[in-house]
Amino acid sequence: MGQSEKTFVALVGLGTVGTGAARLLLDHGDRTARHAGRILWLNHIVVRDLKKSRNVDLPAGILTDDLDRLLADRKVTIVAQLMGGIEPARTIMLQLLESGKDVVTANKALLAEHGPELFDRARELGRTISFEASVAGGIPIIANISQCLSANGITSIRGILNGTSNYILSDMDQNGTKYQDAVAAAQRLGYAEADPAMDVDGTDAAQKLSILAHLAFGSAVRWDQIPRRGIDSLQLADFRYASNLGYRIKLIADGETRENRLQLSVAPMLIRKGTPLAEVRENYNAISVVGDAVGRVFFHGQGAGQMPTASAVVADMIDIATGRAAITFRNLKLWSGTASPLPVSELDTLPVRYYLRFSVPDRVGVLAAIAGVLGEEGISIASVYQHDDDRNSEGNIPLIILTHESEPQKIQSALRRIRDLPAGYQTVEHLKILD
Amino acid sequence: MGQSEKTFVALVGLGTVGTGAARLLLDHGDRTARHAGRILWLNHIVVRDLKKSRNVDLPAGILTDDLDRLLADRKVTIVAQLMGGIEPARTIMLQLLESGKDVVTANKALLAEHGPELFDRARELGRTISFEASVAGGIPIIANISQCLSANGITSIRGILNGTSNYILSDMDQNGTKYQDAVAAAQRLGYAEADPAMDVDGTDAAQKLSILAHLAFGSAVRWDQIPRRGIDSLQLADFRYASNLGYRIKLIADGETRENRLQLSVAPMLIRKGTPLAEVRENYNAISVVGDAVGRVFFHGQGAGQMPTASAVVADMIDIATGRAAITFRNLKLWSGTASPLPVSELDTLPVRYYLRFSVPDRVGVLAAIAGVLGEEGISIASVYQHDDDRNSEGNIPLIILTHESEPQKIQSALRRIRDLPAGYQTVEHLKILD
Repeated sequence: MGQSEKTFVALVGLGTVGTGAARLLLDHGDRTARHAGRILWLNHIVVRDLKKSRNVDLPAGILTDDLDRLLADRKVTIVAQLMGGIEPARTIMLQLLESGKDVVTANKALLAEHGPELFDRARELGRTISFEASVAGGIPIIANISQCLSANGITSIRGILNGTSNYILSDMDQNGTKYQDAVAAAQRLGYAEADPAMDVDGTDAAQKLSILAHLAFGSAVRWDQIPRRGIDSLQLADFRYASNLGYRIKLIADGETRENRLQLSVAPMLIRKGTPLAEVRENYNAISVVGDAVGRVFFHGQGAGQMPTASAVVADMIDIATGRAAITFRNLKLWSGTASPLPVSELDTLPVRYYLRFSVPDRVGVLAAIAGVLGEEGISIASVYQHDDDRNSEGNIPLIILTHESEPQKIQSALRRIRDLPAGYQTVEHLKILD
Repeated sequence: MGQSEKTFVALVGLGTVGTGAARLLLDHGDRTARHAGRILWLNHIVVRDLKKSRNVDLPAGILTDDLDRLLADRKVTIVAQLMGGIEPARTIMLQLLESGKDVVTANKALLAEHGPELFDRARELGRTISFEASVAGGIPIIANISQCLSANGITSIRGILNGTSNYILSDMDQNGTKYQDAVAAAQRLGYAEADPAMDVDGTDAAQKLSILAHLAFGSAVRWDQIPRRGIDSLQLADFRYASNLGYRIKLIADGETRENRLQLSVAPMLIRKGTPLAEVRENYNAISVVGDAVGRVFFHGQGAGQMPTASAVVADMIDIATGRAAITFRNLKLWSGTASPLPVSELDTLPVRYYLRFSVPDRVGVLAAIAGVLGEEGISIASVYQHDDDRNSEGNIPLIILTHESEPQKIQSALRRIRDLPAGYQTVEHLKILD
C-alpha cells in the first residue's frame, strides 16, 4: 500500500462544513496521504443547487446535482454525507450504504433519531458509519471514549455540548447581557440559527448526550427521554447571585452512574468558578469523562464551526481509508441491541446540592417558615442570602438558599409545600450545583 | 472473529504500572473483550524476583523469572514491556520483537534515546510498537495527535508533561512552601523518586516533548538537544511577585512552528491565571494542541500513577489486538527518516514577553539606567514594579519589569549589558510569559 494509491471519496452537501472538508481534501492532499497511507481523491460533490456561488475553488466536473452519478460510481468508497435534518438525509445515507460506500456524518439529529436503523443496515451490508463530527465538533470525543479509554469502565460524562447556548450564557454571566440581546449577538456572529430553539431548549445537547451515553455506558436511551431544561427561562439576576457566591451557570449535559444505574439529564447548573467546566467561554465545548482506571480526563475545544467540524470529518475519512474505522465499528456493535446496558433511572434520584431562589416579602417569620418546610423534608441548609437591595415592584426581596446534598424528589416536594404555605412563597428558580 | 476467541498476551515487569495492567486484564476481561472483539488472555508475567510480594492475585503458573519461556511461547503475540531504564529494557524489547511479538511500552526514556533503532527494527520485522503510556499517562495524547487530529497541520504543542514538578510548583505557588519542602512532600506522596533529578531538571519533560514533536511536526530532534531549564533554581519570591501580577509559574514543554521553523523548549514560564494551563494543579498533566483546522484543543488528566498509566497500556494492547495499531504504526513511519521534518531553530528566536527581576540598591537613577539599556536594545517595557518592603540584607530591593514581546537574543544581550554597567545590577530571574 503506497502513498500513490488512491481512495476515491465524495461529499454530499457543500454548506459550511462541506466547504471546509473540500478545502482540507483539495488543499492538503499531502497531509491526508501521509496519515492514510494513500491519497484521498475527491471525485464528486453532490449539491442541490449547481448555480449557488461557493467559497472554494473546485476542479472542473466535480460538482453535480445528480446523486445517482455518485451512487453509480463504484470507485468511490467513502462519502461524507453533510446534509442536516432528517429527510432526505436518512434516505440518502441508506442509499449510500446500499451502493457499497462507507459513510461519514456530522448529523447528530439523524443518529439520535435513526441510529439503530442506520447502524443495523450498515452492519448487514458490511459497511461503516463514522460520526466523530456529530458530537462536540473539533473535540475528538467519540474516538477518545470508544477507543482511547477502552480499558475503562466510564462512570461519568459531564459536558458543555452546545456552543450556542454557552456563548449566550457566557455573555449573560460576564457582561450582564439580557437573554434576548445575547441570542441576537450569537446570531450576528453566526453561532446561532435564525431559529435557535434546538440550541437553547436543550434538544441539541440531549441528542449529543444520547450518542455519548450509548458509547460510554452502552445505554440505548432515546434523546427525547432524557429530562432536559433549556436556558431560555433563566433570569439575569441568578447569574449575579450565583457569581457573588462563586459560581457560574452553565448548560450541562450529564450522564452519571451510581449503584449500577445510569442517570442522564440536560439542565443549567451552578458550577464553581475555577473548575474546568465553569471556565469554558464563548462558543467552546468541553467534556469531562471519568473512567474507573484513568480517573478524570478533560477535553476542551471548538464544538462547531467550519474547520473544526471539517477536521473531524476528514479524520474520519482517513480512519475509514486506513481500515481502522471498520474495526472499531464492527467491535463496538453500536445500537445493535446486543449490549447489556445499564438500567436507566426513570427518576432524577441522585442527591445533589441545590440553589433555590424565592421571592418573599421582607418581614419576620418568612425564613423560619421556608426553613421549617425544608427541615421537615430532611433538606439541610448550607447557607442563606437575602438581597434587601433587590426589592421588586411588589416590595418582595430575593431569598437565596444553598442546600447540602439533597434528593431531587425531596426538593420538589418541599418547593410544592412552600408554594402551598398560607403566604404562598414563590420559588423563582432552582438549579443544581456542581462543586 | 467472535468474543470467545483469544489473543494471548504477557507482561514484562510487575511494578506499579505492571500491577495495574495485570488487574485490568484479569479483573475486567469482559471490558477488554468487548472493545477488542476477542479475549485478551494474560499468559505470562516475567519478573526479576519471584519471591517478592505482589499487590495482585495472580492465577497459578503465570509468574515467571524466565524471559525465554515468554520468547518461546509463540501463542503470545502482544507483550507490554513495563521495565524502566535503558538496559536491559532495550535488549528485551528487541528480543520480543524478534520473537514475533508486538510490544507496548510506557518507557519514554527508552524511546527518546533509542526510538529510531527500535522503530526501524519493528518495521523490518513487520511488528508494531505502541507507546500511548509513554507521554502524559492517562491523557491519550499520542492517539489524539497521530490519529484524531490527522486532518490538521499542528502549529503548536504546549504542555505540562511532568506531574512531579507540577506538584512542587503548585505547592510553592499556593502554599508558599519552600522548594526543598515541596520536593519532600512530593516524595512522601509517591509523586517523586528518591532522586527526583530527571523530573525537576526538565529531562523527563524534554524526553516527552521530543516524542510529541516527532508525532506532531515530523521532527526527529533528540531530547538532549532541546534547550531546557528545570525548576530547581526558582525562588519563592518570584511566585509571590508573579501571583500579584496575575500569573502562575509552570514548567512548560513548548513546541511552536512559525514561518516553517520549529522551536522546542522546556522551561518554567509565567502563565496568566485563569487560562487552562495555569490552572493545572497538583500532579496533573495538560496539553494544549493547536491545529490549523481544529484550532486549539486542550487535554487535562492524570499524567502518571498506577491505574491511569495502566489504562493507556491496556488500551494499546486492545488496539494491537484489533489490528488498528498496526495500521497506524505502518502509516506514520515513525523515526523512519522518510519524513521531511521542519527545520529546527538552533536558537531561541520567537519574540515573547519577559518577566525580569533585578536586585538593585534603592536609589535614584537605577531604573533610568536599566530602562536605558533595555530601550537601546529595542526592548519595550510594559510595566515596572518595585517592592520597597522586600529589602534584602544588603539593602537591595527587587525591581520587576514586564516587557512587551521581545526577541530572546535582545533580552540576553540587555541582561549582559545591565550586569556590566558600572553599578553591576544583578538579574536575579528572567522568565518568559505566556498570556
